Amino acid sequence: MTFHQHTLPNGLTILGETNPAALSVAVAFWVKTGARDETPEVAGVSHFLEHMVFKGTPRRDAFTVNRDFSRIGADNNAWTSEENTVFHAVVLPEFLPEVVDVLADILRPSLRGDDFDTEKKVILDEIVRYEVQPGWAVSEHARKHFYAGHPLGNSVLGSTASITALARDQMAEYFKRRYVAPNIVAVAAGNFDWPKFVSLVEKAAGGWPTGVAPRTQRIEPPGAGGVHVVTKPPDKVAQQYVMLIAPAAPADHELGYAGAIVSTVVGDYTGSRLFWALTDPGLADEAGMGVDECDGAGAYYTSFNCDPERASKCYGIVRELLDDVQKNGITDDELQQAKTKVMSREVRAGERTQRRMLTVVKDWVYRDEYRSVDDELAAWDAVTMKQIREVLDRYPLTNQTVTAYGPLERIG
Amino acid sequence: MTFHQHTLPNGLTILGETNPAALSVAVAFWVKTGARDETPEVAGVSHFLEHMVFKGTPRRDAFTVNRDFSRIGADNNAWTSEENTVFHAVVLPEFLPEVVDVLADILRPSLRGDDFDTEKKVILDEIVRYEVQPGWAVSEHARKHFYAGHPLGNSVLGSTASITALARDQMAEYFKRRYVAPNIVAVAAGNFDWPKFVSLVEKAAGGWPTGVAPRTQRIEPPGAGGVHVVTKPPDKVAQQYVMLIAPAAPADHELGYAGAIVSTVVGDYTGSRLFWALTDPGLADEAGMGVDECDGAGAYYTSFNCDPERASKCYGIVRELLDDVQKNGITDDELQQAKTKVMSREVRAGERTQRRMLTVVKDWVYRDEYRSVDDELAAWDAVTMKQIREVLDRYPLTNQTVTAYGPLERIG
Repeated sequence: MTFHQHTLPNGLTILGETNPAALSVAVAFWVKTGARDETPEVAGVSHFLEHMVFKGTPRRDAFTVNRDFSRIGADNNAWTSEENTVFHAVVLPEFLPEVVDVLADILRPSLRGDDFDTEKKVILDEIVRYEVQPGWAVSEHARKHFYAGHPLGNSVLGSTASITALARDQMAEYFKRRYVAPNIVAVAAGNFDWPKFVSLVEKAAGGWPTGVAPRTQRIEPPGAGGVHVVTKPPDKVAQQYVMLIAPAAPADHELGYAGAIVSTVVGDYTGSRLFWALTDPGLADEAGMGVDECDGAGAYYTSFNCDPERASKCYGIVRELLDDVQKNGITDDELQQAKTKVMSREVRAGERTQRRMLTVVKDWVYRDEYRSVDDELAAWDAVTMKQIREVLDRYPLTNQTVTAYGPLERIG
Repeated sequence: MTFHQHTLPNGLTILGETNPAALSVAVAFWVKTGARDETPEVAGVSHFLEHMVFKGTPRRDAFTVNRDFSRIGADNNAWTSEENTVFHAVVLPEFLPEVVDVLADILRPSLRGDDFDTEKKVILDEIVRYEVQPGWAVSEHARKHFYAGHPLGNSVLGSTASITALARDQMAEYFKRRYVAPNIVAVAAGNFDWPKFVSLVEKAAGGWPTGVAPRTQRIEPPGAGGVHVVTKPPDKVAQQYVMLIAPAAPADHELGYAGAIVSTVVGDYTGSRLFWALTDPGLADEAGMGVDECDGAGAYYTSFNCDPERASKCYGIVRELLDDVQKNGITDDELQQAKTKVMSREVRAGERTQRRMLTVVKDWVYRDEYRSVDDELAAWDAVTMKQIREVLDRYPLTNQTVTAYGPLERIG
C-alpha cells in the first residue's frame, strides 16, 4: 500500500492509499462540518443538508443520482456527525471515473425549494422515530448534560422546532460557508491509479470556490458532572437506561491509544470487565464502554440498560468497577489481551477498502499524518503500563456525568 | 486462491480456500442441522443448543471459552437457521491452532444441567423480546402460513411452551443424533497452511463419532396461498406490516442466478422497482424483496411496512408491480444494472475472508461444488433474458401467500 497526497489550487485536499491487491476502490468526499459548527437557529442543518445532497443538481435529478450509483453497482451512503459530513461509495476499479463524477456532482446540490419542503417532512419524521428509541434518547440527554453548552453537545438531528423553522436560504448560506474547497477532502483507497484519481477530482472539483471555514470553540470541555434523571412512564420506556460520560483524550493526543486500551479492558462488548460484571450474569441486557475522539476533545461513554429493579445494583457495580480501575489500573494480562484484540481488529479492517479509506482520511483530518496498517499496529503494541497510568491520571474514570433515562425517579 | 478438500475417516468434511494475500483467516464448524430437523416436541432445540455450546466442555467452563477467544483477538460468533448451526471466528493467521482448538472443543459441550436451566431463562427472554418486534413477528406468521406444515416453516426460536417443556436429556439426544462427524464441515478461508489446518482438525475432531443424520421431508412446498391477517391493537403495533411469500428455486437449481436477478430488479433495497414505487415517494417506510435458497426449496420474500392508512394502496401497488413483471418480464437495462450490482457485491465480498469462507462452505453443502469468485462472476454474467422468462414461468411471482400484521382487520 502506498500513500499519496495532493492539494488543488482552490485548497481541496486529495488523499489516496493505493493497493494493487485490492478488488475494489472506496471513494469519499469528506466535509469537515457538522452539528458543532451550527448556531442554535440552524440546529440540524448539516444533517438535513446531507439529505438534500441526494436530491439533485443542475445536471441530475434525484432519480438520476440514484440510478447513476445503481448502474455502476456502487455501495454508497452518507452520514453526518458532530464534526463531519461524509459521502462515500465502494465500486469495482473500472467505475472510478463514474463514481467520482456522481459524488462530486452531488456535492454541488441545487437545493430546490420544493425538494427542501418535501425532505423537511422526512427529517421531522426521522426525529420522531429516533425520539422513541431509548438508546438514542439517553445518549442525546447525556451529551447535553455532559457538554453543558459546549457545541459538541449539539444534536445532529436538530429539534422539531429548529427544523420546522429552518428556511431554504439559511441552508444555502450554511452550504456556501462550510462546503468551500479547503474544508473538503477527496479520498480513495484500494485498487486505483493515483494520477488518474487526481485528474478526475481536479476536473470535477477544481472549480469549487475557495474560502475559510474555521471551527470555533475548540476548548476542551471539563464535563459538567452531576447525576441527571429523566423519568419516563413505564408504558413508554420499560427498561432503565444509564449513561456515564467522562472527558477523554482528543483525537490528536499522544495518550489516545492508551485511552482506547483502557476502554477495551473496561467495556468491550465481550470479555471485558463490564461484560463479566453485568452482561454475562444477566444483570444488564447490554453494557459497554467506548471512547469518542473528537477535534480538541474526547469522551468515554459508559452505558448499560436493564430491568429498572436492578438499575441501582448495576449502577453501583459500574461505579465500583470504574473506581477500582482508576485506583489500581489494569493487569498485565488485560493489557496484553486488549492489545491482541485491537490489533486483530485493525488488521481485519485493513482487508476492506472502505475501512482503510475512512482510517486514512481520519488520520489526515485529525492528526495531519498518514499511518499505514503497520504504523497503527506498532502504535498499539507500544502502549505501556506507564501510559495507562498517565491517561488515567490525566482523564480520570471517576470524573463522570451521569444520566438516567427510564421509569426510575432516582438512581444509586 | 486455491481450493482444498479432505474427508476424515469418521466422515467429517474439511474445506479450505487459501489466499496468501489475505491478512486474516476465517474458520467455521458448520453443522447441517436446524429448525427444520426438529420434531414439534423439541421445537427450538437447535438454537438453544447453539447457546449451550458456549457454556463449556470437560476442558473449559464458560468463562474460559470466552477468555480463550478473547486472548487471541477472535471475532467469533454463531447462528442458527432453519437448516444450519454455524460457529465461526476470524483471527490473525498466527492464531489458527488456538482457534481450531477452541471451536472444536466447544462443539463437544458438556450440557451441564445447571447451565441448561440458567440458559433456558435467557432463551425464554429472547423469545419475548423478539415477539414484540413486528418485523420479526410478521415473518414468523408469514412463514407458518406459506409452509403450512412443511418443516421449513418451523420457528428457529421455538415457542415459550416448547422451550419451557424441553429437558436437558432431549437436547443431549438431539446433539448425539445430529452433531455426528459426517453432518459437520470444518472450513477455513484466507491466509493459512492447508496441511496444517487438516492436521489440526484431525487432531481435534478425528475422534468424533460417525453416524447418519438424514434430512427428511425434502419435498418442494407449493405455497399455501391465501391472505392471512393478524390484527394487533394500534398501541402495540403502530405500523402495518405485510409480507408476501412465493416459491422460488432451491439452492442447487440451475435457474437460481436468474431468480436472484429478478429479485434484485424488483426489490433491492435501493434503485429497484419497489424502491421507486414505495420507498422513494415515502409511501412505505421500508419495502423490499429477497430470495431465500434452501435445501430442496426456495422462497421469494416481498415485504413492506407503512402507515396503516396507506397499507391498501401500497399492497395494490405491490401486486400490480409483481403482476407486471410476471407478464412482461424485465428490461435489458434492468438486467444489465442488476448484473453490475450483484457482481460488484460478489467482488467486494471476496475481499473478506469471512464472506469467502461462508460462500465456500455453502456452495459445498448445497451444491457439492467449489466456485471461485471468477466462477461466480461468470455465472452471474451468463444469465440471459431467456432464463429470466424461464424462472418466472417455473416460479411465478403471482403465486403469493400474503400475511398482514398490524392494526388493520383486512388488507386489499
